[in-house]
Amino acid sequence: MKKLAVGVLGATGMVGQRFIQGLEDHPYFDLVCLAASERSAGKKYREAAKWHIEGGIPESVADQRVDLLDPGLVEEYDLDLVFSSIPASVAKDVEASFASRVPTFSNTRTYRMEDDVPLIVADVNPDHLSLVEKQRERGWDGFVVTNPNCSTIGLVVPLKPLLDVFGIDWVNVTTLQGLSGAGYNGVPSMAVIDNIIPYIGGEEEKMESESLKILGSLGDKVDCSDIQVTASCNRVPVLDGHTEAVSVGLSRDFEVEEVVNAFKDYENEPQRLGLPSAPCPAILVHEEPDRPQPRRDRLAGCGMAVSCGRIMRKAERLLRFYALSHNTIRGAAGASILNAELAYKKGFLG
Amino acid sequence: MKKLAVGVLGATGMVGQRFIQGLEDHPYFDLVCLAASERSAGKKYREAAKWHIEGGIPESVADQRVDLLDPGLVEEYDLDLVFSSIPASVAKDVEASFASRVPTFSNTRTYRMEDDVPLIVADVNPDHLSLVEKQRERGWDGFVVTNPNCSTIGLVVPLKPLLDVFGIDWVNVTTLQGLSGAGYNGVPSMAVIDNIIPYIGGEEEKMESESLKILGSLGDKVDCSDIQVTASCNRVPVLDGHTEAVSVGLSRDFEVEEVVNAFKDYENEPQRLGLPSAPCPAILVHEEPDRPQPRRDRLAGCGMAVSCGRIMRKAERLLRFYALSHNTIRGAAGASILNAELAYKKGFLG
Amino acid sequence: MKKLAVGVLGATGMVGQRFIQGLEDHPYFDLVCLAASERSAGKKYREAAKWHIEGGIPESVADQRVDLLDPGLVEEYDLDLVFSSIPASVAKDVEASFASRVPTFSNTRTYRMEDDVPLIVADVNPDHLSLVEKQRERGWDGFVVTNPNCSTIGLVVPLKPLLDVFGIDWVNVTTLQGLSGAGYNGVPSMAVIDNIIPYIGGEEEKMESESLKILGSLGDKVDCSDIQVTASCNRVPVLDGHTEAVSVGLSRDFEVEEVVNAFKDYENEPQRLGLPSAPCPAILVHEEPDRPQPRRDRLAGCGMAVSCGRIMRKAERLLRFYALSHNTIRGAAGASILNAELAYKKGFLG
Amino acid sequence: MKKLAVGVLGATGMVGQRFIQGLEDHPYFDLVCLAASERSAGKKYREAAKWHIEGGIPESVADQRVDLLDPGLVEEYDLDLVFSSIPASVAKDVEASFASRVPTFSNTRTYRMEDDVPLIVADVNPDHLSLVEKQRERGWDGFVVTNPNCSTIGLVVPLKPLLDVFGIDWVNVTTLQGLSGAGYNGVPSMAVIDNIIPYIGGEEEKMESESLKILGSLGDKVDCSDIQVTASCNRVPVLDGHTEAVSVGLSRDFEVEEVVNAFKDYENEPQRLGLPSAPCPAILVHEEPDRPQPRRDRLAGCGMAVSCGRIMRKAERLLRFYALSHNTIRGAAGASILNAELAYKKGFLG
Repeated sequence: MKKLAVGVLGATGMVGQRFIQGLEDHPYFDLVCLAASERSAGKKYREAAKWHIEGGIPESVADQRVDLLDPGLVEEYDLDLVFSSIPASVAKDVEASFASRVPTFSNTRTYRMEDDVPLIVADVNPDHLSLVEKQRERGWDGFVVTNPNCSTIGLVVPLKPLLDVFGIDWVNVTTLQGLSGAGYNGVPSMAVIDNIIPYIGGEEEKMESESLKILGSLGDKVDCSDIQVTASCNRVPVLDGHTEAVSVGLSRDFEVEEVVNAFKDYENEPQRLGLPSAPCPAILVHEEPDRPQPRRDRLAGCGMAVSCGRIMRKAERLLRFYALSHNTIRGAAGASILNAELAYKKGFLG
Repeated sequence: MKKLAVGVLGATGMVGQRFIQGLEDHPYFDLVCLAASERSAGKKYREAAKWHIEGGIPESVADQRVDLLDPGLVEEYDLDLVFSSIPASVAKDVEASFASRVPTFSNTRTYRMEDDVPLIVADVNPDHLSLVEKQRERGWDGFVVTNPNCSTIGLVVPLKPLLDVFGIDWVNVTTLQGLSGAGYNGVPSMAVIDNIIPYIGGEEEKMESESLKILGSLGDKVDCSDIQVTASCNRVPVLDGHTEAVSVGLSRDFEVEEVVNAFKDYENEPQRLGLPSAPCPAILVHEEPDRPQPRRDRLAGCGMAVSCGRIMRKAERLLRFYALSHNTIRGAAGASILNAELAYKKGFLG
Repeated sequence: MKKLAVGVLGATGMVGQRFIQGLEDHPYFDLVCLAASERSAGKKYREAAKWHIEGGIPESVADQRVDLLDPGLVEEYDLDLVFSSIPASVAKDVEASFASRVPTFSNTRTYRMEDDVPLIVADVNPDHLSLVEKQRERGWDGFVVTNPNCSTIGLVVPLKPLLDVFGIDWVNVTTLQGLSGAGYNGVPSMAVIDNIIPYIGGEEEKMESESLKILGSLGDKVDCSDIQVTASCNRVPVLDGHTEAVSVGLSRDFEVEEVVNAFKDYENEPQRLGLPSAPCPAILVHEEPDRPQPRRDRLAGCGMAVSCGRIMRKAERLLRFYALSHNTIRGAAGASILNAELAYKKGFLG
Repeated sequence: MKKLAVGVLGATGMVGQRFIQGLEDHPYFDLVCLAASERSAGKKYREAAKWHIEGGIPESVADQRVDLLDPGLVEEYDLDLVFSSIPASVAKDVEASFASRVPTFSNTRTYRMEDDVPLIVADVNPDHLSLVEKQRERGWDGFVVTNPNCSTIGLVVPLKPLLDVFGIDWVNVTTLQGLSGAGYNGVPSMAVIDNIIPYIGGEEEKMESESLKILGSLGDKVDCSDIQVTASCNRVPVLDGHTEAVSVGLSRDFEVEEVVNAFKDYENEPQRLGLPSAPCPAILVHEEPDRPQPRRDRLAGCGMAVSCGRIMRKAERLLRFYALSHNTIRGAAGASILNAELAYKKGFLG
């Protein structure tokens, strides 16, 4: 079977590098085009990217030329779909110009909350994918599928089985987020050594709103969930990996063992369809008292598993647990690739 | 006026060093005796202590001999009171033997929850100090006054004005705690560089129980508060300073400005009596969106202020704010010294 | 061909974990026995070891029982050889008792400088291996082969081609060493966050003496080299990887290009024999001005390459370069395994 | 006596903040003007500066307005002298326009190596100050006095007594430099957590050339020293403080005790004149085997002392020691202020 030709928009950044890693030797997709801004265009990838993943740049892309972000690349490379991790500041027009040509799987926040755009975590709300059909009204040949913010993904994966099994009234989450989420130059070392920064611009708002769309039910559009979600977001001196301390008001009382089982047994379409990037299990439960930890657990399931631990019943109907996920794999590039795999298997890619 | 002669039990540890710093040139107290375990006894202080405070060991103690922990030191040095930061494993007997002779101000958890022992944060529940009179029934010539765990102190100081002004139904706190709280050898660098540890043994339980005694009302003994307090405690790669993300269910709805004013206006006996170690104000309110931060704010008010910020109304009656305090000063040695100053001014030290 | 049965002595430590990683699916060796001290013996490996390598414990050993260090294990498991990374304090007797039975490849310093014991870096002085025949005089059935200290290995690999091509008069090296070399509990986080420690006990002496034996020539015993080697050793806040700034007084003047070529072209028996753990190339030359860096380069060549860069002619005959190597792979477990592979191929293992 | 009115050019940066700290309550100088680039001009200082020194912004400047860098400030504020830590990219013109009006003490590299400009470390070559008289030929009313690069200062202070007592043939130094030297945004956290960067642009060249001018002898111009100095410069994850491992080929053989005494006894004009910022002693000798350390020792002598340790005779005439200094105090702002104090006492300020 012929693989689909794919391009990555924003190929040199922290998430772009994870796209390259995740698409190496991919069974469905063939990475043929690396696009980035003027600063990088025209250079070899090895010169354009400040590669930060241990083990070095894959040989297959090291000497590839980086192209300038331009929708003409679709025709030039005969692309079947694109992945995007470009900055929100330029995404509105650029992603629209690509989506009018081919399916576009985006990490950027720009289109996430629009009524006809699916905001998908493939392990949580795969059924929302059909929203792309609404986008025909835009007159596009392709469509946009978005995935949420990295910290939202790490939260909604464990919330989904809780919602299914117990019902959820409210969620209160505090995050300890890795640095790569802010981009290579995002956080100066002078800011964060021997320090934490109790603020990430826009992050709490994203967690509080995106979660509700993902956990909502699909009708003509998504009817957002009415769970009360409140978030406190912090940057900590960790390279990769978001740790989240989650308190949940469940709709009924429970025993810890029930929650453990709900997590362990959880699966959804990616697992059932055997998608290549699907983590199995989707949720990894730790029983040691001091896990999950970002450095030790972020690469579980090739960076796609959500690791949960410290599951406790703190009071009647009051559950507390920790969730850890790799912010640029599970929380970004890997999530996008998994969405594209889902779309592929379900026949949305032509 | 003659100063009172004081000794420090556990003088070489992280908290012991802060006792020495806080007692230098103290107007009421004269530090005459440094006691520690067999490992240190007999050495000069500069050789026994792994001094870690920038600026070096005060000359006044550098060459002083460290004595072996022994209640006979009371007579040998004619001590009027002692401060203790010895390990809980030995505190029960050692502190009792000192308390039977002189007032003993302890950082150790051993006696905190006993009915006749005051658990005091001088800025929060100074009235509980009179509990020491109950201890006469133990046949002691002195008494024990305890202060709570470091993370508890940073929490209850801002909770008190909220309780006074709005009433509190529940509290949900997530901590990001500095390393010094675990002792010099407590956390290996291999454990915490590029990592966080989402667990501190016994810490959540202490925050959840100690807070209720401190915020309780004094009768024949302390009647604990019935606020629901739940805590999630984390160790982060920060040397000193505990950051706490606090969500509070207030008993009535509120505006952010009311909370800001409740914090800014808060004072209690230490401020009114002008105690030497009392921070003024007790609570420092930051308006910048990214504060408080441990490295920047831990030394505010000579390490005795609690810095608060990111005060938000997240939903009806749902307040979220951050509190930061220096764990070995405000949260330990400084709190103990402030308790002793309160006892001194109120005539409990003879 | 039947694989040889091997055991690892000191299997739970930082180096022990790298032995397990390096021996997984090894073409010559089959890891059948994990031995450690009383603290670990009797437990499952997953419970005994504080596993710190990203990706988790290999399934093949996770549930294996850890045995108590005892030479009777040779018979119990019918071992053909053992690897040792036990503490120097116990190595003298324990390693002798194993070496009297089977070939023993040791990371420990105890036997390194003895006249009849080869101190080998397989890429540098493979010919010294024949010294083991001298050990027959000890009446042992096996023998001991040692590899040097981690920081020595990273130095002598690039020194060897310099010695061969230019001659060396003196070497002055300053190290910036990763934390894992000190063991999991070796360096407290309070000691090294926002700090460096300009001292590692015994390390400078080891670099200054071991290098001379390795670079010496083999006669009846090794005739040590008379190069003047001086070292300054530092612990820095890096998890794995030793960076070394090396100044070398060459015996003749040179051009940078000659040194680059000497490094790039260097190979020795491990490369020529195609040993499974041999890095190809042995020395990786970086041309970027800011490389090698420990986090980016320590895993080059599966952790077995030495990465060199910043090669400059600072004055006549005065060469300066940087060398970086993974301290627990290239500098310890991997070096030992490579020595055993060499011994295997050359017929020393029976 | 009336204090001299001074301004700081580049007042918001890492060094600018140290100027403000060092000029607070200064006995000779009164800080009246804070100047910076357009990005900061017009704002209150507390809003313009990302203040990073523990303890917070001095009240005296927090609400002061930041002025735009303009030589007209000399007349506006009736300035007697200025300190400069502006970027080299703009320094040539800006510093000249100030120096044509008033004495200008500069941290910037621009004028350091010009024949008529003194490059001064007040504890090392105070006599070079008279070079300013040569600058009259420029037609300036003021003059420029420069201090060297931070890493050079920490090196030449201990070299001077060695040169005086033993003579020096060559110096080989490897630095482990703190992050603040690169400016607040200079080093991304993604670059340096769990990592070191073995390269600082231009730094080795500065150490290798500036040292020779400072240690040179003054005639009509400075006759540079012919010591061979080679440097290897590294950025490490330390906030403040440069650690240097120094090997020195002395002109005669020596005993360690002689070096210790040469360091301890060393003083120069700043000490003899009792200048307010002069450290006493200039060189602090540590006898513990693991000192000096940046976090523990950088604030010695209010950040103005150079701490030395690990003094060893590695071979005949081959001395090795470590030197540590605070890069933005001893190595920058404090050095400039000390130069101005020297100029003041010696009558160069009118």
